[in-house]
Amino acid sequence: MLDQFDARLDADFPPVDPVRLIAALKPLLPPENLKTQAEALRPYETDGLAAYRSLPAVVALPETVEQVQAILRVCWELGAPVVARGAGTGLSGGALPYPGCVLLSLAKFSAILEIDALARTARVQPGVRNLAISEAVAHLGLFYAPDPSSQIACSIGGNVAENAGGVHCLKYGLTVHNLLKLEMVTLEGEVLHLGSDAYDAPGFDLMALMTGSEGLLGIVTEITVKLTPLPETTQVLLAAFDDVAVAAQAVAEIIAEGVIPAGLEMMDGPALRAAEDFALAGYPKNAAAILLCELDGAAPDVAEEIARVSALLSSCGATEVRLARDEDERKRFWAGRKGAFPAVGRIAPDYYCMDGTIPRRALPNVLTEITRLSEVHGLAVANVFHAGDGNLHPLILYDAAKEGDQDAAEALGGAILELCVSVGGTITGEHGVGREKINQMCVQFSGSEIDAFHALKAAFDPKGLLNPGKAIPTLARCAEFGGMHIHHGELPFAHLPRF
Amino acid sequence: MLDQFDARLDADFPPVDPVRLIAALKPLLPPENLKTQAEALRPYETDGLAAYRSLPAVVALPETVEQVQAILRVCWELGAPVVARGAGTGLSGGALPYPGCVLLSLAKFSAILEIDALARTARVQPGVRNLAISEAVAHLGLFYAPDPSSQIACSIGGNVAENAGGVHCLKYGLTVHNLLKLEMVTLEGEVLHLGSDAYDAPGFDLMALMTGSEGLLGIVTEITVKLTPLPETTQVLLAAFDDVAVAAQAVAEIIAEGVIPAGLEMMDGPALRAAEDFALAGYPKNAAAILLCELDGAAPDVAEEIARVSALLSSCGATEVRLARDEDERKRFWAGRKGAFPAVGRIAPDYYCMDGTIPRRALPNVLTEITRLSEVHGLAVANVFHAGDGNLHPLILYDAAKEGDQDAAEALGGAILELCVSVGGTITGEHGVGREKINQMCVQFSGSEIDAFHALKAAFDPKGLLNPGKAIPTLARCAEFGGMHIHHGELPFAHLPRF
Repeated sequence: MLDQFDARLDADFPPVDPVRLIAALKPLLPPENLKTQAEALRPYETDGLAAYRSLPAVVALPETVEQVQAILRVCWELGAPVVARGAGTGLSGGALPYPGCVLLSLAKFSAILEIDALARTARVQPGVRNLAISEAVAHLGLFYAPDPSSQIACSIGGNVAENAGGVHCLKYGLTVHNLLKLEMVTLEGEVLHLGSDAYDAPGFDLMALMTGSEGLLGIVTEITVKLTPLPETTQVLLAAFDDVAVAAQAVAEIIAEGVIPAGLEMMDGPALRAAEDFALAGYPKNAAAILLCELDGAAPDVAEEIARVSALLSSCGATEVRLARDEDERKRFWAGRKGAFPAVGRIAPDYYCMDGTIPRRALPNVLTEITRLSEVHGLAVANVFHAGDGNLHPLILYDAAKEGDQDAAEALGGAILELCVSVGGTITGEHGVGREKINQMCVQFSGSEIDAFHALKAAFDPKGLLNPGKAIPTLARCAEFGGMHIHHGELPFAHLPRF
Repeated sequence: MLDQFDARLDADFPPVDPVRLIAALKPLLPPENLKTQAEALRPYETDGLAAYRSLPAVVALPETVEQVQAILRVCWELGAPVVARGAGTGLSGGALPYPGCVLLSLAKFSAILEIDALARTARVQPGVRNLAISEAVAHLGLFYAPDPSSQIACSIGGNVAENAGGVHCLKYGLTVHNLLKLEMVTLEGEVLHLGSDAYDAPGFDLMALMTGSEGLLGIVTEITVKLTPLPETTQVLLAAFDDVAVAAQAVAEIIAEGVIPAGLEMMDGPALRAAEDFALAGYPKNAAAILLCELDGAAPDVAEEIARVSALLSSCGATEVRLARDEDERKRFWAGRKGAFPAVGRIAPDYYCMDGTIPRRALPNVLTEITRLSEVHGLAVANVFHAGDGNLHPLILYDAAKEGDQDAAEALGGAILELCVSVGGTITGEHGVGREKINQMCVQFSGSEIDAFHALKAAFDPKGLLNPGKAIPTLARCAEFGGMHIHHGELPFAHLPRF
């Protein structure tokens, strides 16, 4: 089921003759920036969601905005699908090529163009790595706050396309909250400037619209990000619990108390034990769940919050609350969390990482329900996630070599996402919809809402050439999938409390 | 020039027979909710921008979402323009009726539907007053942060339509940053749910798109806002300066220091003297400018910041720095600021309130340039504004009874907005474009950008019936206006430093 990218339900283009396409693109780029041979195309056949793969007709690596404009004009004229790609680390298949498309890589847009320490902004090209921005401004006492787990490799352009999150987004916001301006090129080759250096921009909020639009509306060629002052102090608390639901309840109470941690992460027993074996982080291996709560800011403030949160965790039923004694221990605590995905990869042949969000107060019930679903589907689940903002990452453990396991993993993943929607949550927190969750969009949205998305898409891309088959399902797909839109906790999880 | 709403350049509808329109609407509403007599229409002929006026054919006051759907379906079928109206306090003419339109008042959508103290959200109808939300949740230690000056009267639906700001937006964000969900009705009568209770929502960010869209895309019928914990302590510093540019420089330095005040407001000499005469706030009347800097949060934190900001203000050249001794004095300081507009109204027969934003570091140069422009145009300007976020409110003083004064005021206002754009700023910070600044949109945006706005508008409103002649100019209008798009400090202010 998870294999070739089959887009019959989503788009149906008359095939573009690859010879004609390549001939039209050749004059636009130096030869080494246009890849057409099968072995050169192969590295682009998939992204971080390796379950699907398919080949583009050609990979274009432009270096200038003018080249991007010229490439898009060719695609527009010939009716060729175009799929943009950053670093290819995305987990929802957003950069998966449409068969026979032009794969537009922004890898050569890799310059940091300007750093303004006083205004606290950086103007960068989309191929710049997320972490490279923070590294470039560290000497100014600044950093770029959104920090997806892949930040060492993922590109800021991909972050914009997926509205990426991360551990620190609880306090500092998602990608969209950390942008000032975007420069984009439309499919017809027009350059648009979105947002402004100032506080607000008139006109429709195209910058927010473009952020998270997964390559469906245009190609981003320049990004101005906000930078954040590095906090004076950062400390981390580890709390252990003998019940997952109790840990989840503690999360809601910390936030209700008015504390906004820089990060508030949760791992359940299977996840924390895998992480401990892998990273020797110092986690209590007999716990049913742990929370990591990072607090940052001015020193007196952090000290006061550490005291409040520690007391609260104890009163919420934590069996142990530990403050990382020093920077070494703090880093070890985080190393365990950051290595949790690969660690889980060592205890099962394969895992499927889900990404849904729920209102925080739904955490205890949803975790209990995930355990039940896991038993129903006969597959174990390890939970490692951004608890503070209700962004779940259940890792479904399976063995692709075992008959039926992959289908069961997919079914369980779908059920978990529908559970998220049924309690007022969403089918994605930070990974995007891409190819992976396109069916679940039919659960999240009504036909009218999906129609509105299509109308908006058509305003930018009337021929439907930009990243076809991603993010927004056709109504035909929803009909085939079963079209079960859940609005506010109707079927199939009506037995759960409404939030 | 500022009188009848002349929309020839913007939209040209075949007139709808009012008898037919009223006959179609009558079955949809109780008789008292459909106003058709001239004297009943008169109160709706203008809004907070009293310079323009025109009459609708009918005023509809629906009370349910179903009634809104039915009214919009009639407008869609008959091709009748529709203008939505909240409290009518907007300053850019956003609620000004298109001649002969259906004026859709949301005044009867005035219920607070749900308050959730744990999730810190309130679900409200669009006709609820901004301040009423904070009043309803004060006993829970919460408030709704965006606070336009009109907050006692303006409605949350209007705040969403204009993406309203206020004194506290520097720290707490604009309206769009304080929303979780919107329910809207499309022109074709479909109900859409935008945003989510969770951290992020999949699909295109229609919630951000709808916020600030000035009634051009649909009608908002329900709003879920985020609530913010009331700060433990609030203190205010007053700093006096003998030079406006020095005060402006101090603003940039406070922010560069890493402090984010809850509010950072500036008044120049004419404004502060008018305010002092009016409100007896205790301002130093011989100063060339004052800053009010409000700091809020935990008590030790605020004490530390007060010390840092006081020292910084002195080192930046403040001639006097005073901490409000008690809550009474703090309120007096703010009473002067909040009364500054009516106070200025006492020193000149008329004033024209502008609203532009600029990058903070441009403040000293821009204030100097406004003084020069004021001399060129022969009209005095008083400056009262949200300095911390670079949101200017120059008040142009004139006498409408004096031949040529009104035209001069408009010309000076336009020049000030173009100045804002030329330094990388925008033509509106929080008042919206509406009717007032539609020509300046041609300065802010390129033809391609305006085309993108039109395409997006057409996706929601293919007949162009929603609030015609507002916010997005036609290219015909830009051509008539002179079509002088300024991108990043090209003409006509290229002599100013680029930011």
